[in-house]
Amino acid sequence: MPICHADQLRGLMAGLFEAVGTPADTARFIANALVAANLTGHDSHGVIRILQYIEVVESGALVPDAVAEVVAVDGATLRVDGKWGWGQPAFQLATLETIALARQFGIAIGTVEHCFHVGRVAPYVEMIARAGMVGIAMANAGPAVAPYGARTRVMGTNPIAWAVPGNDAEHPFALDIATAQIAEGKVRVARNKGVPVPAGAIVNLDGAPSVDPNDFYDGGALMAFGGHKGSGFSMLAQLLGRGLAGMTQERLLGHRGGNGPIVIAIDPSRFGPLELFRAAVSDEAERVRAATPAEGFDEVLMPGDPEVREQTRREAEGILVDDTTWDALVSEARRFGLDDTLYRA
Amino acid sequence: MPICHADQLRGLMAGLFEAVGTPADTARFIANALVAANLTGHDSHGVIRILQYIEVVESGALVPDAVAEVVAVDGATLRVDGKWGWGQPAFQLATLETIALARQFGIAIGTVEHCFHVGRVAPYVEMIARAGMVGIAMANAGPAVAPYGARTRVMGTNPIAWAVPGNDAEHPFALDIATAQIAEGKVRVARNKGVPVPAGAIVNLDGAPSVDPNDFYDGGALMAFGGHKGSGFSMLAQLLGRGLAGMTQERLLGHRGGNGPIVIAIDPSRFGPLELFRAAVSDEAERVRAATPAEGFDEVLMPGDPEVREQTRREAEGILVDDTTWDALVSEARRFGLDDTLYRA
Repeated sequence: MPICHADQLRGLMAGLFEAVGTPADTARFIANALVAANLTGHDSHGVIRILQYIEVVESGALVPDAVAEVVAVDGATLRVDGKWGWGQPAFQLATLETIALARQFGIAIGTVEHCFHVGRVAPYVEMIARAGMVGIAMANAGPAVAPYGARTRVMGTNPIAWAVPGNDAEHPFALDIATAQIAEGKVRVARNKGVPVPAGAIVNLDGAPSVDPNDFYDGGALMAFGGHKGSGFSMLAQLLGRGLAGMTQERLLGHRGGNGPIVIAIDPSRFGPLELFRAAVSDEAERVRAATPAEGFDEVLMPGDPEVREQTRREAEGILVDDTTWDALVSEARRFGLDDTLYRA
Repeated sequence: MPICHADQLRGLMAGLFEAVGTPADTARFIANALVAANLTGHDSHGVIRILQYIEVVESGALVPDAVAEVVAVDGATLRVDGKWGWGQPAFQLATLETIALARQFGIAIGTVEHCFHVGRVAPYVEMIARAGMVGIAMANAGPAVAPYGARTRVMGTNPIAWAVPGNDAEHPFALDIATAQIAEGKVRVARNKGVPVPAGAIVNLDGAPSVDPNDFYDGGALMAFGGHKGSGFSMLAQLLGRGLAGMTQERLLGHRGGNGPIVIAIDPSRFGPLELFRAAVSDEAERVRAATPAEGFDEVLMPGDPEVREQTRREAEGILVDDTTWDALVSEARRFGLDDTLYRA
């Protein structure tokens, strides 16, 4: 499996997105977003997405040169129309506008309609936290997950993320999870690597537990994380993605990889001095990190700590790309006649 | 174990709260709130709390005749000062004011400072949903739960709840969970009944897994639900309860049962007609209920369905009160010289 420097992957991905009709700056933006997911250790949301993304463009379901715009601002709420273009710049627009509204009102909410896959959600809420606010985001997604007590696909993997600023302005605390036991992308990674998925993560077509990632793609379902509690969190994203962002089942099925994203920003400076808020958050974090580790653990981490570490490591050592994904990248690059310096070892 | 009609428990509880100095209308309000928890099947948040509540009043930590008030409204944010009085009326005030602000701005957030135990959180977010809005609430609480990877008490059981209105205006969909694997109150119920807690819910003082509820009270810890994901949700309530509602560790330890609650209301009518939102939500609910049950399940339920059923049943058949709790109720009623018609079988 090749180990690539982030810059090489960024260039290659940007070249491919441009080749299918994406304006250069947008192509670079999406490429950076995917490679950022690899850097933080979340390969499920990184360059592995390349075939899916290109397929959706070539199917006509995604308009690569669409430009998202704010279509309504009403009080502390706003709606962005993604126009079935790339999800990442559309959700970034919604996030930036939501930050601006929250600055004005103390709290604000934004949604994106007609939105393709937004990728990993952490970067959006981290953007809010770097602006000194609390960010909460969620999205619905195509049916893949069985609700608690069920064995058929009803909910999406429905990510939910939060970020809260502490004393370190650049590195807020952040959680970004699929409300499935594991993300669909992580099943994809396992399939590409030919390894099993953890027990309790999927059921096959007959509703029996399985560790074979192929069983999911053959009509099985993912399980929600954390029993009825995790399933209940997924449900909130399911209801709001449909109800507020307008991402219906028809749209989800017609735009494979579509999301109905929602983002909320809360300005803590309305409740007291921001510096006291930051200090309180960092103090709680220190209490967590100082806790006695459980059996099998060497240390106790805050949400976001593993990603910061992995990013430092991968920026230095490079990103391991699985062979299936690398072969797809090279094959697509050849098909579009990209300069071979982009993918030479 | 006696089976009591809800009205009898309401009268008895209200009598006790009045006896310790609570104004009659507030006493009735808190009594109704606790009995409502029993009615929905959540005995952990019902009349079992009586000794804890009376102890905190008698210790001087809770001021039974304090009247909560709104101390700041700033844009779409507000702060209520609970003045270390009863948590239920304080959080209700914050919720009602947050609904009013969300009507004005489309989204709003409220907090309560100096707040005692708010009880079950569902009733507050359901109040928001009955006003045609989406409610999300959370709170921090005294240290009881080990963060993921740890075995010492750092986080509270930190409840998180949501409610979303569908076509049935009276019965919104609602989730209300402790972010611990089980609520501390459910460990209390198990201890009072002399039964074990489910495996994976607690560790003893040495960090070893246990099913003996006494091990928790002897210095063990609750586990967070859902591994690092559930622990990460708990963390959000931990950070916001401290950072926004000002509920520090010192205050949590000094006011046993204290909460730092936060409530958010979102008006879906800013994103499209409310009736379409309600219909979309109910349609998603029907998809869930129509899913094929997994092995061991007869049907698939929406969050809130079990509570509606249990309430119907217990309103008709009465509430089973464990002997420990009943003995405490009668003994306290005698101590305060309450009319014995309140607790006669």
